[in-house]
Amino acid sequence: MGRWDGWFTVEHHEVHSHARAGRLHTPHGVVETPVFMPVGTQAAVKTLSPHELHQVGAQIILSNTYHLYLRPGSQVVAEAGGLHRFMAWDRPILTDSGGFQVFSLAALRQVTGDGVRFRSHLDGSEHFFTPELSMAVQRDLGADIIMCFDECLAYPARRDEVEASVERTTRWARRCHRAWQEDGDPDRQALFGIVQGGAYPDLRRRSAEELAELDFPGYAVGGLSVGEPAGVTVAVLDVTVPLLPAGRPRYLMGVGTPDLILEAVWRGIDMMDCVLPTRMARHGTVYTSQGRITVRNAAYARDFGPLDPACDCYACRHFSRAYIRHLLKVNETLGMRLTTIHNLRYLQRFMERLRQAVREDRLPEFRAAFYREEGAALGFRPPEPEPLPAG
Amino acid sequence: MGRWDGWFTVEHHEVHSHARAGRLHTPHGVVETPVFMPVGTQAAVKTLSPHELHQVGAQIILSNTYHLYLRPGSQVVAEAGGLHRFMAWDRPILTDSGGFQVFSLAALRQVTGDGVRFRSHLDGSEHFFTPELSMAVQRDLGADIIMCFDECLAYPARRDEVEASVERTTRWARRCHRAWQEDGDPDRQALFGIVQGGAYPDLRRRSAEELAELDFPGYAVGGLSVGEPAGVTVAVLDVTVPLLPAGRPRYLMGVGTPDLILEAVWRGIDMMDCVLPTRMARHGTVYTSQGRITVRNAAYARDFGPLDPACDCYACRHFSRAYIRHLLKVNETLGMRLTTIHNLRYLQRFMERLRQAVREDRLPEFRAAFYREEGAALGFRPPEPEPLPAG
Repeated sequence: MGRWDGWFTVEHHEVHSHARAGRLHTPHGVVETPVFMPVGTQAAVKTLSPHELHQVGAQIILSNTYHLYLRPGSQVVAEAGGLHRFMAWDRPILTDSGGFQVFSLAALRQVTGDGVRFRSHLDGSEHFFTPELSMAVQRDLGADIIMCFDECLAYPARRDEVEASVERTTRWARRCHRAWQEDGDPDRQALFGIVQGGAYPDLRRRSAEELAELDFPGYAVGGLSVGEPAGVTVAVLDVTVPLLPAGRPRYLMGVGTPDLILEAVWRGIDMMDCVLPTRMARHGTVYTSQGRITVRNAAYARDFGPLDPACDCYACRHFSRAYIRHLLKVNETLGMRLTTIHNLRYLQRFMERLRQAVREDRLPEFRAAFYREEGAALGFRPPEPEPLPAG
Repeated sequence: MGRWDGWFTVEHHEVHSHARAGRLHTPHGVVETPVFMPVGTQAAVKTLSPHELHQVGAQIILSNTYHLYLRPGSQVVAEAGGLHRFMAWDRPILTDSGGFQVFSLAALRQVTGDGVRFRSHLDGSEHFFTPELSMAVQRDLGADIIMCFDECLAYPARRDEVEASVERTTRWARRCHRAWQEDGDPDRQALFGIVQGGAYPDLRRRSAEELAELDFPGYAVGGLSVGEPAGVTVAVLDVTVPLLPAGRPRYLMGVGTPDLILEAVWRGIDMMDCVLPTRMARHGTVYTSQGRITVRNAAYARDFGPLDPACDCYACRHFSRAYIRHLLKVNETLGMRLTTIHNLRYLQRFMERLRQAVREDRLPEFRAAFYREEGAALGFRPPEPEPLPAG
């Protein structure tokens, strides 16, 4: 029996769907799934302290290898005793591989068989990322869950491009796996493989099967939330999730709106992350039980009620929409902090209700009620899976 | 016996100096003096929540009438139930009169006998501030302590200018007093007169005597911390503080470095405020028991100790200099928040020790030790009072 057998325990399969409720056992504690992971790009969830992340109920956060590699440098984080010590966050952390940012942020990318040469988006300095370097950096950061260095294409992409990308991702996954085993911390850090394949079901199958051979502790669905319509997102999940090993956690990268979280969980996804709820918050827009509110708007200048009367967060217990609007208008950072706290708390409470519905076999009712009431107020409609190209 | 007799109780006179320890009894609780008041310009102490202000030990904060009048408008604050409710701060608040900002920030000022016409520094809109308007705005804001609308000159200023300014300040103080009595909330809001007179002892005397006739609940020393050397500041305090009614609180406006706080308290000042400790913090410089540290500097990139090993604040209990430097470098607002928490906590602990020294008649030892050790490390030397022009 391998080190990672049993680290993820599925405790309940919802009877009407592919959803499941489980637990991830990490060196920094247990994570109840399905789970939403707030993003702390630069070793901080923007505007929040670790204390506030605890208060909103965050179980695990994500941080970005690319950003930390550039600043402060993974060596500094390693000397600090790892990312947990560095940022004073005592619960689990997942780091991405740096691949997504290299392909989306960095300049002058040049992909070779070995890796990617790029220039920093900050100062133009040249760097060369390889699967081995990504593994070494993530080992230094010391997260509980680390990701394979992959290539993530935008949507839409031509079939030949996606095919080449799947081949590269598999080759790089093998090198990541080897580096993890030989130079990494394979007893403490769980390495996830990332399934690519765009919107091509046969390429998704090929990617999933090739990765499964390596027996990763977990599997991510990559290459979604990259500009495709929601109907494509769910159609790809429909064909991809069943290909993933049932006993391992499944992580959908980059998804974080309540509707797609619900659809992904329905289809058997256990973990998700997204910058959207925190970015939206900083721009002054919040989710509430009564719909979406852009609290920066003049309409709220004299609205002395809380952001959401149904919410128990610090922002809603103490401050009015009028005050938060004022703070946002005059650029007081407390404003962005309060909207961020609220949106994360909203999502955490949504996840709590969702986990409960899964455990109690009430997911169809939960889903119907969501699209009829709260989700409708937020402007969400059930996505219709789109037909995907045949293989 | 007037409403305001006994609202300020002097509990101890330090035997070697003019310092005193006392208590201010306000509708929002008791303030122990001498006290330092953090500045919450726009209904928030920049980067902090009210919860954090509690944690650093802030007893009372200051907010700015000019800024709140422009945004969100005092009417909005009044509708919210006043500034305490609006910003969710349940301890005392002091608002300034708006005068200082009108004279330092606004454009195209035109002073008439009646008031000051000016253009907003934000959008150029034209406004006319009078003593009566300042009182009405401060009544709407609902602070525990409010200030007379005065004219504050820069340093140095010609004698004839200062004399005209003292005359105007007295005239306006009479109008403020009347408006406070007739249209204000004179039972709940304590109105302070502001002594002007620049560096001219006889004009200070005249200003103090004219204001004393009005029997204000408290008196401020204005027109200092406006560019003059520290030797002038203390010399003006030497001649001015003895002129202020002994039974009323004495507030030195705009002073907030530890050395001048100590010198002011020595001379009988009870209250002070300053943006410097919070502004310095946002620029990455903090006070510590080992000296001043600009934690943004590269020297701290791998310094994994706390900002100040002798400090008990949230920043020092959880985070390293290296992490805080990283946050400041990558513009994560948590960085400025942590340095702000630290500097305010540093000053609060300084005030606690200072109050203790006053109560225990140890102020000379405290002062000598300060300039020999901690103050020396911070770069402070005892100011030498400069000779002032004879009247």
